[in-house]
Amino acid sequence: MSSKGGFSDLGFAKIDTDRLRRKGFSEVIYCPGKTKEHLDKITAELIRNKQDVLLTRLDKKTFAYLKKNHPRLKYRSSAKIGFCVFSQKKKKGLAVVISGGTADIPVADEALATLEIMGNKCIKLYDVGVAGVHRLMHNIKIFNKAKVIVVVAGMEGALASLVSGLTSSPVVAVPTSCGYGANFSGLSALLTMLNSCSPGVAVVNIDNGFGAGYFASLINK
Amino acid sequence: MSSKGGFSDLGFAKIDTDRLRRKGFSEVIYCPGKTKEHLDKITAELIRNKQDVLLTRLDKKTFAYLKKNHPRLKYRSSAKIGFCVFSQKKKKGLAVVISGGTADIPVADEALATLEIMGNKCIKLYDVGVAGVHRLMHNIKIFNKAKVIVVVAGMEGALASLVSGLTSSPVVAVPTSCGYGANFSGLSALLTMLNSCSPGVAVVNIDNGFGAGYFASLINK
Amino acid sequence: MSSKGGFSDLGFAKIDTDRLRRKGFSEVIYCPGKTKEHLDKITAELIRNKQDVLLTRLDKKTFAYLKKNHPRLKYRSSAKIGFCVFSQKKKKGLAVVISGGTADIPVADEALATLEIMGNKCIKLYDVGVAGVHRLMHNIKIFNKAKVIVVVAGMEGALASLVSGLTSSPVVAVPTSCGYGANFSGLSALLTMLNSCSPGVAVVNIDNGFGAGYFASLINK
Amino acid sequence: MSSKGGFSDLGFAKIDTDRLRRKGFSEVIYCPGKTKEHLDKITAELIRNKQDVLLTRLDKKTFAYLKKNHPRLKYRSSAKIGFCVFSQKKKKGLAVVISGGTADIPVADEALATLEIMGNKCIKLYDVGVAGVHRLMHNIKIFNKAKVIVVVAGMEGALASLVSGLTSSPVVAVPTSCGYGANFSGLSALLTMLNSCSPGVAVVNIDNGFGAGYFASLINK
Amino acid sequence: MSSKGGFSDLGFAKIDTDRLRRKGFSEVIYCPGKTKEHLDKITAELIRNKQDVLLTRLDKKTFAYLKKNHPRLKYRSSAKIGFCVFSQKKKKGLAVVISGGTADIPVADEALATLEIMGNKCIKLYDVGVAGVHRLMHNIKIFNKAKVIVVVAGMEGALASLVSGLTSSPVVAVPTSCGYGANFSGLSALLTMLNSCSPGVAVVNIDNGFGAGYFASLINK
Amino acid sequence: MSSKGGFSDLGFAKIDTDRLRRKGFSEVIYCPGKTKEHLDKITAELIRNKQDVLLTRLDKKTFAYLKKNHPRLKYRSSAKIGFCVFSQKKKKGLAVVISGGTADIPVADEALATLEIMGNKCIKLYDVGVAGVHRLMHNIKIFNKAKVIVVVAGMEGALASLVSGLTSSPVVAVPTSCGYGANFSGLSALLTMLNSCSPGVAVVNIDNGFGAGYFASLINK
Amino acid sequence: MSSKGGFSDLGFAKIDTDRLRRKGFSEVIYCPGKTKEHLDKITAELIRNKQDVLLTRLDKKTFAYLKKNHPRLKYRSSAKIGFCVFSQKKKKGLAVVISGGTADIPVADEALATLEIMGNKCIKLYDVGVAGVHRLMHNIKIFNKAKVIVVVAGMEGALASLVSGLTSSPVVAVPTSCGYGANFSGLSALLTMLNSCSPGVAVVNIDNGFGAGYFASLINK
Amino acid sequence: MSSKGGFSDLGFAKIDTDRLRRKGFSEVIYCPGKTKEHLDKITAELIRNKQDVLLTRLDKKTFAYLKKNHPRLKYRSSAKIGFCVFSQKKKKGLAVVISGGTADIPVADEALATLEIMGNKCIKLYDVGVAGVHRLMHNIKIFNKAKVIVVVAGMEGALASLVSGLTSSPVVAVPTSCGYGANFSGLSALLTMLNSCSPGVAVVNIDNGFGAGYFASLINK
Repeated sequence: MSSKGGFSDLGFAKIDTDRLRRKGFSEVIYCPGKTKEHLDKITAELIRNKQDVLLTRLDKKTFAYLKKNHPRLKYRSSAKIGFCVFSQKKKKGLAVVISGGTADIPVADEALATLEIMGNKCIKLYDVGVAGVHRLMHNIKIFNKAKVIVVVAGMEGALASLVSGLTSSPVVAVPTSCGYGANFSGLSALLTMLNSCSPGVAVVNIDNGFGAGYFASLINK
Repeated sequence: MSSKGGFSDLGFAKIDTDRLRRKGFSEVIYCPGKTKEHLDKITAELIRNKQDVLLTRLDKKTFAYLKKNHPRLKYRSSAKIGFCVFSQKKKKGLAVVISGGTADIPVADEALATLEIMGNKCIKLYDVGVAGVHRLMHNIKIFNKAKVIVVVAGMEGALASLVSGLTSSPVVAVPTSCGYGANFSGLSALLTMLNSCSPGVAVVNIDNGFGAGYFASLINK
Repeated sequence: MSSKGGFSDLGFAKIDTDRLRRKGFSEVIYCPGKTKEHLDKITAELIRNKQDVLLTRLDKKTFAYLKKNHPRLKYRSSAKIGFCVFSQKKKKGLAVVISGGTADIPVADEALATLEIMGNKCIKLYDVGVAGVHRLMHNIKIFNKAKVIVVVAGMEGALASLVSGLTSSPVVAVPTSCGYGANFSGLSALLTMLNSCSPGVAVVNIDNGFGAGYFASLINK
Repeated sequence: MSSKGGFSDLGFAKIDTDRLRRKGFSEVIYCPGKTKEHLDKITAELIRNKQDVLLTRLDKKTFAYLKKNHPRLKYRSSAKIGFCVFSQKKKKGLAVVISGGTADIPVADEALATLEIMGNKCIKLYDVGVAGVHRLMHNIKIFNKAKVIVVVAGMEGALASLVSGLTSSPVVAVPTSCGYGANFSGLSALLTMLNSCSPGVAVVNIDNGFGAGYFASLINK
Repeated sequence: MSSKGGFSDLGFAKIDTDRLRRKGFSEVIYCPGKTKEHLDKITAELIRNKQDVLLTRLDKKTFAYLKKNHPRLKYRSSAKIGFCVFSQKKKKGLAVVISGGTADIPVADEALATLEIMGNKCIKLYDVGVAGVHRLMHNIKIFNKAKVIVVVAGMEGALASLVSGLTSSPVVAVPTSCGYGANFSGLSALLTMLNSCSPGVAVVNIDNGFGAGYFASLINK
Repeated sequence: MSSKGGFSDLGFAKIDTDRLRRKGFSEVIYCPGKTKEHLDKITAELIRNKQDVLLTRLDKKTFAYLKKNHPRLKYRSSAKIGFCVFSQKKKKGLAVVISGGTADIPVADEALATLEIMGNKCIKLYDVGVAGVHRLMHNIKIFNKAKVIVVVAGMEGALASLVSGLTSSPVVAVPTSCGYGANFSGLSALLTMLNSCSPGVAVVNIDNGFGAGYFASLINK
Repeated sequence: MSSKGGFSDLGFAKIDTDRLRRKGFSEVIYCPGKTKEHLDKITAELIRNKQDVLLTRLDKKTFAYLKKNHPRLKYRSSAKIGFCVFSQKKKKGLAVVISGGTADIPVADEALATLEIMGNKCIKLYDVGVAGVHRLMHNIKIFNKAKVIVVVAGMEGALASLVSGLTSSPVVAVPTSCGYGANFSGLSALLTMLNSCSPGVAVVNIDNGFGAGYFASLINK
Repeated sequence: MSSKGGFSDLGFAKIDTDRLRRKGFSEVIYCPGKTKEHLDKITAELIRNKQDVLLTRLDKKTFAYLKKNHPRLKYRSSAKIGFCVFSQKKKKGLAVVISGGTADIPVADEALATLEIMGNKCIKLYDVGVAGVHRLMHNIKIFNKAKVIVVVAGMEGALASLVSGLTSSPVVAVPTSCGYGANFSGLSALLTMLNSCSPGVAVVNIDNGFGAGYFASLINK
């Protein structure tokens, strides 16, 4: 198994061993749809090449399976992230992760874990949705110190616009699928965030806490 | 032309002359799709029956045409409403009409005109969208005196949730089609308002300022 | 654990202890997506602050779990609402809850329970959909006495328009997801209600019986 | 130009000269998207083959152009139908065409014209929408004599279900694009009619008055 | 329990005992969303009033439950219909039920069972979809004898247009949810049938075999 | 202006002068959204590099403007294609272009023109839609000789499945936006073709006659 | 059981025994929605008529059931295809199957299996998505030798355009439902592929690996 | 006219004069839906308060109207931006604006103008879409020097993923409405960008060049 051309060819997968050089972080593995045997071989190949490992949407049971072969692998269960970092990352500037409600926490935790694993200083500020806006206002000093803010919200997702209107930091908005009926599995919050009347907001996919954390980390360099 | 069975049969239209008794307000005429000759005959029949006249989405040109035959007819051009009220309405409690932005004014004015024609005391509070939330906070006393609040907003439509979180009055939310792209002609604001995380919000159709004003007036009785 | 700034900070949640003052009713808890441990702590904090407790979409099993720690908690199983009211609410004017069909009852009961817990006198009128309109007409006296009417209907959701055409009370319409195929999980009834040709109708989210009851209660003050 | 194989080949069109035998009525021509020269040649070929001519969505100007070459051609302007019938149709049983509002008349007239040209006895009953249901109830005898009923309605389109609940005749429902906002160009009325809780309703395309008239005529044989 | 006003009031349901007189067939019960206790009481009330019983989407297990209390109840398992007919229906003219594929049979059987229970002579013609059009052509004599044709098809649903082009009988089209991907749970076939280029097609809801059978039976009177 | 790296950099455009080598045909220019000055410069650059010119969706007026500077440019007005071919293409095997109706001809002609300019022998077979299927059957010999078939159809777009079921040639299906209402600007035909129950169909974008012709030409090599 | 008229009538199915002659390959059976008894009888009838058998979306358990009665039946589990080929297919030119990611393999394998069973020489090139484009570039020689290329990709599905821009072979694009959130079950990749800016791409249904393989095989003749 | 509470109240508008302090840039004015008189008064008020003026989607004619009263106002016509900057901005790090095609230039120019007005050094790289990927590769050095990259693309919008895979800079993606058919006014490119398989991409609204430029400028601080 060679790594000719900047990748390791496993047949079912071609691990991008050049990514660390090109993008500043190794290839991140999205676990759904991959068998546990595939994930095991991918993890082994990453470790063999001294690449950092970051496995997203990894369920507890599959982690336990992988842990047996790869004892260095760690797990953040609320974020469903498995990881193993070789290089010690230098702490970067402050990133704040804000959630609208308690039900958005799994997605917010995925963003938070990604940010921390990628070497960012982080503060979290959860359950400060627009139904009781004083909870946000009370904490305005915290998020105004941030170099970047991740806002995670479901239902109508109005929080991203509101936060953006109060700060000069860029806001990375994550719509979540929390809600029901005309929420249409997160479409409502997604459209809200894309149509923000306050400039300074950019959006990632529904429930994509990882993508928001990764993007925020790039900003925070 | 008789009014047997509670309506006047004009062939192309059956004017509901019983509606004032049943619903407390005469039949309101939605103008698009009706010829000016039809609108003329309908107006004549309403006036002949001493019913209040309220014509929505009436363009200036058609109003001028109707005005010639019905000199009592008045017009509020920003609201595109033609009207002629026979009974003097008793002033009811305070209704506040709030708009997110300047571009929402035509719809907000339609709500305002409807409320005033139906006998409500009104205050308007325009351009207080979430991008600069202090503009709203500065006016919190005004809208906290209201018996009912109409919130008109386009783009992401977050204002309805925010207002609702600050008041014990019922909020009638009107999404507008102001915006572009993923606004999808008002769908974005509509979904936002339907998914409000703050209880105390109910929603009418996109750009339906009249419907919001009418509904608010029923609450304000 | 303090309540500085009008909220109790539990880390994963910030209980809005100021809401009763601001909105006339304590913070209502939407249960899906929250762990039973989270719900337990939130309930404890509400009770500790002498706030009324209202938990929506609470399944039977989780209620049983909470009941052990909070013996005052009661449950209305058809409505899936857990509650515990400290202040005795004064009975307000009559609210009528109307359902189109038998399958809409869970949502209608959620609206009814919310109204009753919030201190409203209520009458229910179930299974009077448009397929047999005489069932509605027969009861016209009842709903014409109402100060507010909640109409709950699935499939094509035509009932809201029809009721609204017969009464001067405001109609709060709740589309349900009852139906199949081109019902698209309640979209059909939602669009119907938003497009009502009869003025005097405002709409809440699909299956949102709680929201309708809450909004109706505000009207009924 | 021959008619081998049951059609006349004009190159740009293959006129189905066998359709009268197969389906009981000649090929009907939908005009939009066809040049006036094409329409002229198609009309000529139909007349040459002694086939009845029915041109739908024909605008006034194009009709005037065709009239010069085909003096027998007649026009119903409210329905935008051009026609020329060779065989005298025998009058069939009664068909009733009902419209919800005045703005639905163009579509209702297209259904009515189609029915009459195809030899049906017809009664029209316009502007009897659900906002004032007594207008419909007052005319219940008329539509209960019908062998088939066509119901044309826009906005929420609730009329089809209501009529169907009052009669044993089959109801052919036509959603119209009358409305705005969450009407989504007729989608609202279309979904309403497809989800009718009253059995005995079938639906044609939005604004398809011709299709409803044609289908109703087949029932009325 | 009385039947004043043309209905029996069970509280949770108002059985429309006048429907047989008005519509020629008793109220049909759609089972999903109703508890088995509710279905039991409804069935009892219908039988007590000597109304025909027709229960749609009734699963096997619930039928077994009802059978114990109502031994006269019969079941057609492929159609998931429970029924019990008091009056002997007179055989009407021929109805043909056509399906595109084998996977559409449950819906086609629902249409077939409805037609037969309502007293129609029926022939079925299954698996004659457009991928092998000779299978349909071979049977053209059969469906050309029909007074009405029900066409049931999923995937692209092209069969309804094709059949309609070959016959002078009205075609009642039923889109099914058979398919995957861009089928969008039957949307594809629904749109196909609504846009039929061949006149003489009307459409019912996705998977609504009962509705098609009922409507076809009205035509076949 | 050089062509370093396989393209000519015009600032506003980078003409891909390597495409002929890579893909066997020069870069094709889609005209909408480009100014006539831009189109002029692009055309000049292509000609200067002895590349074949193919301009799609080119309106008559812009063509006239370009013709003045580029006298070799030709135009097929029904297809709205401007072109100028340097190399004489060798005639390839037979391609057949089939259209459902007369209104689909502009799109069918765009496919036909593309095929012919790219050196394919072609036969066209227009207006053979499923409403009169004998018109297609009569011509079965013609399209069975084809090496590839392009089927262009609007409304329900059923023709692609039908043709595919009768032949062993691959069918390239082009949905058109002809139709109205639930056609949703071609969505109906698009979904139909994607869901074809007959294998051997692949689909291009709505109204994309050029894309179908180009793809068919690749097959026909 | 005869095969008169080119098909075997099993009542619930009409096996198209003429398809091999007409289309060059026997009728392919799509398994979902068919009972195992139906699949058994269909398989038996195909074998009795010496037709090749190809069963798609066949789960392991049902295969095991069929295997008992039809020992010649083979299974490719990653592709979920059951098959039994009577005639030895002659090897055709090279087809390349490319996948964007590891999670797309089940669909890619369905395309690959279909191609191989239909007698094509194949190479697979998996996990070469646009996030690391050098993996594709490294293999450019392989896919440039292909007579046809199948590209299978989920998420944003950008790979089809990219591959098409690098080759003169026709690209058959298969969107997969891999992804989440705004992927909307494959809609995202489907729209991407339909809107390809590079000509030479045609698209099949979401997850339709079989359809792509079949279509590619027709091209590869 | 005072500016109490951080805003200037013009009645129809409340200019947010505090925004410069809070967000680092004055309130930006979105022109559509505002009358030219409103725009004139808003511009005057901004200038009076020494705030920078930035007017987006300003058409040429309205600019000419404003220019008469506000001679300092400048205009970038390709970007449709009117502006007038009081403070000299310090040049920040490099931002690169990339467009897929020539038709995307108006949106790309809006991003570029916004970036430059906000004080960023910029390079533009237009017409480097995936159909000819070597045009992008040839310029890889340029965009790898960027601190932030804006990618503007219509049709399938694949360019954002591709660029992101080649760089460690954050990519702000702007879908455009360039395209037709299944592009659905930019929905296709929007979904593509939200579903990017390459991390490091965040998305703004369709055609929102301003929003992307503003967001990129925040990153580039």
